[in-house]
Amino acid sequence: MAKYKMILDLDTGVDDALALAYAVGAPEVDLIGIISSYGNTLVDIAAQNSLDLLHLLGADDVPVFIGESHSSTTDHFDVMNISQLIHGKNGIGDVTLTPSPRQVEKETGVDFLIRAAHDYHEDLILVPTGPLTNLAAAIKKDNQVAELIGQTTLMGGALTVPGNVTPFTEANIHQDPEAADFVFTHQKNLTMVGLDVTLRTLLTKNETAEWRHLNSEAGEKFASLMDFYIDAYYNLDIDKRGAALHDPLAVAVSIDPTYITGLPLNMRVTYNTENGDYGRTIGDKTQLLAPTTSKAAVLVDTDRFVKDFQNMMLTVLK
Amino acid sequence: MAKYKMILDLDTGVDDALALAYAVGAPEVDLIGIISSYGNTLVDIAAQNSLDLLHLLGADDVPVFIGESHSSTTDHFDVMNISQLIHGKNGIGDVTLTPSPRQVEKETGVDFLIRAAHDYHEDLILVPTGPLTNLAAAIKKDNQVAELIGQTTLMGGALTVPGNVTPFTEANIHQDPEAADFVFTHQKNLTMVGLDVTLRTLLTKNETAEWRHLNSEAGEKFASLMDFYIDAYYNLDIDKRGAALHDPLAVAVSIDPTYITGLPLNMRVTYNTENGDYGRTIGDKTQLLAPTTSKAAVLVDTDRFVKDFQNMMLTVLK
Repeated sequence: MAKYKMILDLDTGVDDALALAYAVGAPEVDLIGIISSYGNTLVDIAAQNSLDLLHLLGADDVPVFIGESHSSTTDHFDVMNISQLIHGKNGIGDVTLTPSPRQVEKETGVDFLIRAAHDYHEDLILVPTGPLTNLAAAIKKDNQVAELIGQTTLMGGALTVPGNVTPFTEANIHQDPEAADFVFTHQKNLTMVGLDVTLRTLLTKNETAEWRHLNSEAGEKFASLMDFYIDAYYNLDIDKRGAALHDPLAVAVSIDPTYITGLPLNMRVTYNTENGDYGRTIGDKTQLLAPTTSKAAVLVDTDRFVKDFQNMMLTVLK
Repeated sequence: MAKYKMILDLDTGVDDALALAYAVGAPEVDLIGIISSYGNTLVDIAAQNSLDLLHLLGADDVPVFIGESHSSTTDHFDVMNISQLIHGKNGIGDVTLTPSPRQVEKETGVDFLIRAAHDYHEDLILVPTGPLTNLAAAIKKDNQVAELIGQTTLMGGALTVPGNVTPFTEANIHQDPEAADFVFTHQKNLTMVGLDVTLRTLLTKNETAEWRHLNSEAGEKFASLMDFYIDAYYNLDIDKRGAALHDPLAVAVSIDPTYITGLPLNMRVTYNTENGDYGRTIGDKTQLLAPTTSKAAVLVDTDRFVKDFQNMMLTVLK
């Protein structure tokens, strides 16, 4: 049944946890590994969160690899205060999980990605839901990667709406705009699932209450971490109606692109600090008449996705 | 044959001249008037240019009305140096036209627009190719205008590409962002034809040479003013391949929307000066799940439009 080999590149993260659950549950997907990234939390904490979440979901066969711990232009990374307010101090809504009996793999995340690209090429789907540091590093180490990976569907960016860090930049892109620009200008078959669409997919406590009613440990834990996130959205006045399903939407779109309308567009990411548009994902004026290698999701079938997401969660959290 | 009553709101301007010619030539269109605006040149010069161009094209039955002479937030308007470099000191590539025997109308452009909205409502198409000052003023004077006009297709803005005045703002919007924001949030059935698409429709001296070969005064004059503009695009390094058909594309789209792909989106125009994004046309985060009243052109059938435009010009300039 599994049609795709999938790698998730997660800075786990509440909505990363949902993306992980969605990928574990999707019958079309053979989840061959998770690369850990920095962003919502530190890279090591993100890796531990991924291990523990996989254990909670009975998916102890999925290996976890450590990716880069900071951006390509810095020498360390500190979690932003706003990230801790949204995702909790431990990245997963301050929910305590049973520790996984496993450890992270010895191979680095970047080397794993390169190896998988050569092993699976067009069958490989990569879904980065954090900074694009690992993918950029992999391409720089082995430029065949950009051509080999079948499709890359990333959560990040904001093309037709303002950003969420500044009016111009979205949080994942903001972490490493230089890596993002490198990926946008090198990686073939790239789909950007940005705030343009993810802000239209909201989950409420009505849905998490159903997870809790499953009376499973996974249902209880996921409901708790998602409620933390919904509360943060409410208290920080990000959205009073519910919390955005950023990362799971990217996973869903990678499996079924008909959830979104994609605008074919050659994009760049600005990383100069002069114009104030640091980290902006925007069309490349010089490539408007060139063939396109990437697209940006600009519309989403909100109702169908939220319904399908909820059904998937009710299955995987049982 | 005429299906639509059309009003053009022009800051005439080289590409405004092309828009005017396109509207004069289109058999579906009954061009009921031109409102003059400031922008590429001063409002009075723009009005005289429109009168003279109509005379050149044998369209002395189309009345010209004087619109606002400056933005809603300023008390005067000076032509930008870059505008003079692109459009010439007289707005039409420093080409001298035979003066029209007519004068502008006594009724103001704003009052004419209000009257036409009440006379023709859903049959009325408005195509503003300059600042949105006149339309905003008309709605403020009579708020029924926003509902009455059948469709408004404006040239202006930049959603998925950088602007041409700053990385965030396009020239028409930049003239009066407050008026533009008012129009975007009030006018029903609005289509934005911005740099996203107009930069993909380029005309070259191959086409203007064909105009000249018509051996008509109109062919000669239009070829000269357009060559000025193509040279400016080349010399200012805006585009070495040709010059963008900004304003005529808006007229064409208002008659045949299938030239473009429209993205339904509720948009705002930022006009605070704090974030550096003055004059940015961008999706309204608070209205992403609301019904849409406007759309932005994000793709264009370049080949079909440029071919149809050229055929139209060869007919109207004969």
